[in-house]
Amino acid sequence: MNLKEMVGLKAASYVKDGMTVGLGTGSTAYYMIEELGRRVKEEGLDIVGVPTSFASKEQAEKLGIVIKDIDEVTHVDLTIDGADEISHDFHGIKGGGAALLFEKIVAINSKAVIWIVDESKMVEKLGKFPLPVEVVPYGQEQLFHLFQTKGYNPSFRMENEDTLKKTDSGHSIIDLQLDVIEDPIALALELDQMVGVVEHGLFNSMVNTVIVGYADGPKVIDVQR
Amino acid sequence: MNLKEMVGLKAASYVKDGMTVGLGTGSTAYYMIEELGRRVKEEGLDIVGVPTSFASKEQAEKLGIVIKDIDEVTHVDLTIDGADEISHDFHGIKGGGAALLFEKIVAINSKAVIWIVDESKMVEKLGKFPLPVEVVPYGQEQLFHLFQTKGYNPSFRMENEDTLKKTDSGHSIIDLQLDVIEDPIALALELDQMVGVVEHGLFNSMVNTVIVGYADGPKVIDVQR
Repeated sequence: MNLKEMVGLKAASYVKDGMTVGLGTGSTAYYMIEELGRRVKEEGLDIVGVPTSFASKEQAEKLGIVIKDIDEVTHVDLTIDGADEISHDFHGIKGGGAALLFEKIVAINSKAVIWIVDESKMVEKLGKFPLPVEVVPYGQEQLFHLFQTKGYNPSFRMENEDTLKKTDSGHSIIDLQLDVIEDPIALALELDQMVGVVEHGLFNSMVNTVIVGYADGPKVIDVQR
Repeated sequence: MNLKEMVGLKAASYVKDGMTVGLGTGSTAYYMIEELGRRVKEEGLDIVGVPTSFASKEQAEKLGIVIKDIDEVTHVDLTIDGADEISHDFHGIKGGGAALLFEKIVAINSKAVIWIVDESKMVEKLGKFPLPVEVVPYGQEQLFHLFQTKGYNPSFRMENEDTLKKTDSGHSIIDLQLDVIEDPIALALELDQMVGVVEHGLFNSMVNTVIVGYADGPKVIDVQR
């Protein structure tokens, strides 16, 4: 069993009958959704899944998990999702899979959030992983130039050599190669206030539990705030 | 000549040969664009127009004004646009025409901004006019509920009885009936940080010149900051 599968299975054990569960996106969340599908089928687990991307929705539906849109539920009990980087003080970068907007919308409507990662994602400070920023296509070149001026080393996320990647909402993604983010709270505030920025991949103070995969087993960290 | 036409014509007189001009949206900007079209045709005025909506683009093209996208120009020299309310300290509410996102993107890339209004738009404090908030459709019901909880009296902008209005970017509009906005800077910051909010209609400290239409003629106010 690889580390991603290990933490995916562990996280799925937190899901109880009757829960509305936010279903993350990406290669680690994939294993968690597979395990939930198995429990629904084999154990009769009674849950509603709220997916954070078209990909996760498709996967969950195939497994027979009941799916609802975020606007069809009153709240989400628990969201389980991956992360691209987690700092020592448990801020995170997400959006490597371009699903950050829906992931953040589901997360802020969740009573609890679990992130599942392998040990390589645990870092002292964020920023080695490029920070994804979801932007409105109109004016995106002006915004790109502004990021350049600020020294944020922007690059457009590409679908292929000639075509920009589009998110599930039809926006573009600009990745910022920052290397070290000294103050993620301040950077989030700056990006939030920039016109044309829809959302960014900084998930500050949003996680309650982190499950980290190590070769000798998963480690559960309950985050104190 | 009505008051809107009066200020539209006055504002158009600020446009000089060689300028790249941001073309606003709405019933007052309409007259300004018409006048620019006349000057292009009759006086050979040499300008490039950067429209803030599909409607303004169509109007300008029909008039023979050379049109470029905001991402095809290095900057905008002057943007002329309407406003729905302007406070005594020259903050504004825009977005009655649902074009606030593109209008704000063009405005922040402009060296100077002129707002043209009739006298009814000049108010002591903002808020009688409903504040438009452009939101991502995914999760919009959750956001609507949050606005309700905050006492912001939200209502979805409708295209007709059954269909939500969609912006040129495919987003929804939630109008907030706030009556009085005591601190537009603080409210803008709050909305900027809300997940799912793409942009809002508060245009704080963005205008350089206001041209107000009164029955006895237009009054030009140069805003000191």
